[in-house]
Amino acid sequence: MAQKKMILDLDTGVDDALAIAYAVAAPDVDLIGIVSSYGNNLLDVCAENSLKLLELLGQEDVPVFLGLPHSSTSDHFDVMQVSKDIHGDNGIGDVDLPAPKRPLEAMSGVDFYIEAAHKYGKDLIIIPTGPMTNLAAALKKDPEIAHLIGNVTFMGGALTVEGNVTDVAEANINQDAKAANDVLTSDLPLTMVGLDVTLRTLLTKKETQQWRDLGTKAGQAFADITDFYIDAYYNLDIDKNGCALHDPLAVGVSLDPSFVQTISLFMKVIYDEHNYARTIGDKDRLNEPNPNVQVAVNVDKDRYLATFMDLLTNLFKQH
Amino acid sequence: MAQKKMILDLDTGVDDALAIAYAVAAPDVDLIGIVSSYGNNLLDVCAENSLKLLELLGQEDVPVFLGLPHSSTSDHFDVMQVSKDIHGDNGIGDVDLPAPKRPLEAMSGVDFYIEAAHKYGKDLIIIPTGPMTNLAAALKKDPEIAHLIGNVTFMGGALTVEGNVTDVAEANINQDAKAANDVLTSDLPLTMVGLDVTLRTLLTKKETQQWRDLGTKAGQAFADITDFYIDAYYNLDIDKNGCALHDPLAVGVSLDPSFVQTISLFMKVIYDEHNYARTIGDKDRLNEPNPNVQVAVNVDKDRYLATFMDLLTNLFKQH
Repeated sequence: MAQKKMILDLDTGVDDALAIAYAVAAPDVDLIGIVSSYGNNLLDVCAENSLKLLELLGQEDVPVFLGLPHSSTSDHFDVMQVSKDIHGDNGIGDVDLPAPKRPLEAMSGVDFYIEAAHKYGKDLIIIPTGPMTNLAAALKKDPEIAHLIGNVTFMGGALTVEGNVTDVAEANINQDAKAANDVLTSDLPLTMVGLDVTLRTLLTKKETQQWRDLGTKAGQAFADITDFYIDAYYNLDIDKNGCALHDPLAVGVSLDPSFVQTISLFMKVIYDEHNYARTIGDKDRLNEPNPNVQVAVNVDKDRYLATFMDLLTNLFKQH
Repeated sequence: MAQKKMILDLDTGVDDALAIAYAVAAPDVDLIGIVSSYGNNLLDVCAENSLKLLELLGQEDVPVFLGLPHSSTSDHFDVMQVSKDIHGDNGIGDVDLPAPKRPLEAMSGVDFYIEAAHKYGKDLIIIPTGPMTNLAAALKKDPEIAHLIGNVTFMGGALTVEGNVTDVAEANINQDAKAANDVLTSDLPLTMVGLDVTLRTLLTKKETQQWRDLGTKAGQAFADITDFYIDAYYNLDIDKNGCALHDPLAVGVSLDPSFVQTISLFMKVIYDEHNYARTIGDKDRLNEPNPNVQVAVNVDKDRYLATFMDLLTNLFKQH
């Protein structure tokens, strides 16, 4: 099976943890690195979480790079209380994992993007599941990469439903709407996996119990991490029927686009005050050919969930 | 060919005039009546325009009913200047047509809806291309009709692109967002033909010249009426490449849904001050089965335009 070169750009995060597991478990992925972002927690915490989770899954050979610590339009980032409520104070459901044995890479995440784009070209898939600050910075530093990279499948935005921060803003886009607009209006080939579909793929404690029952370290840890998230969804009344598989759905869709129904659109992100962070089609470009964004608007949730559980359960069995 | 019973609900209007022509020309339509609305002009003016146009097309047997004169949340309606700029002071491109020889029906448009719903049931198609005030009033008066009517295909709203009145509001929905919400959140089976698709189907003076060249009264009048609209699109910088076929696209889609790509969604319309008239998917119902709205998000514009021109040119040849 031809393996795709994948970079995850994560603000790890419970569902980011599940995205790592999906990418590690999928047989057709060569996970060449994780770029860290701020978002669900501070940059450093998110990066350390990625290292810890990779170690838990026996992936000590996957490098982790530091991205930028705050949005492109600010000079500071504070974790929002709601992020702690959803992901725990430590970002991974307040589950204690051993301190990582190895360090972060010396190279910056932005430079890693640029190097990988030139090295792998169309074989490279990038999956941002947090703010798009790092990718926007890479595009600014080396605009040529927009024409090199094979595909960017991002978790973020909301086109056909309301947002989860405001009535128009989804949380990832809301962290840095300017960066998101820079990415979406570039020539990059993009797939948007937004609330339109991620709120339809729900995981319950019935599934996490299967992981716990494996009796492995990874099974136990991922069950505990995810149960925190399911409880938060319940207690904050986000959804009483389970937690949304936001970030791992983006990984799944990047590997098998047939999980979702998509529409083709040129898009933009509003970054002035009125309706900040709204992701919307660009009316002025409706009649231009070959839109660069494929927006997922529906999902085969049963098939996706079955694949998700097959992959992750099999992975956790081994660790 | 089995003919569908069709009611048009129009604020006639240039593109409403084209919708009448499409419905009259289509062989699989039995146009059982036109209900008049306010919008592009005053209720009475819109109703008289419908009578005039039916007469021009030799359709003196199609009854025209008066709907309601203003929105469900106001007690008055004034024509907006921009409506006059786009549709002319008289609503039909300032083209003079003979005064109608016959009167409006005595029955109200609202009662006609209710009567037709009970009489024709699933064979009935309703096409509102203006405010949804009349249909909402009929639903309120006789809620049962939501389960009787075959389909409502409306021109209005914007899901994947910004609005044309505000960044979220499309003009028809903006006239009476409360009525639109009442209709969209009812159990009616609906198809939304919004700016998402209507801004992609553009008509130019190359096509209207074909009508003028027919040398008939209808050909000449419709060419002049539509050229006013094309000029307005140009002069107001709405689109330099032609005028949008908003209302006739709704008629076309109601007869041949394969003209458009649709997504299934439960929807709502915002009718408080913030983001008034936004048409958006209902996040709380994302995981319910069988959504009642099919939203058109892309259109086979070439095939639609070819069908539109075939039908209308052939009709105008005869009148």
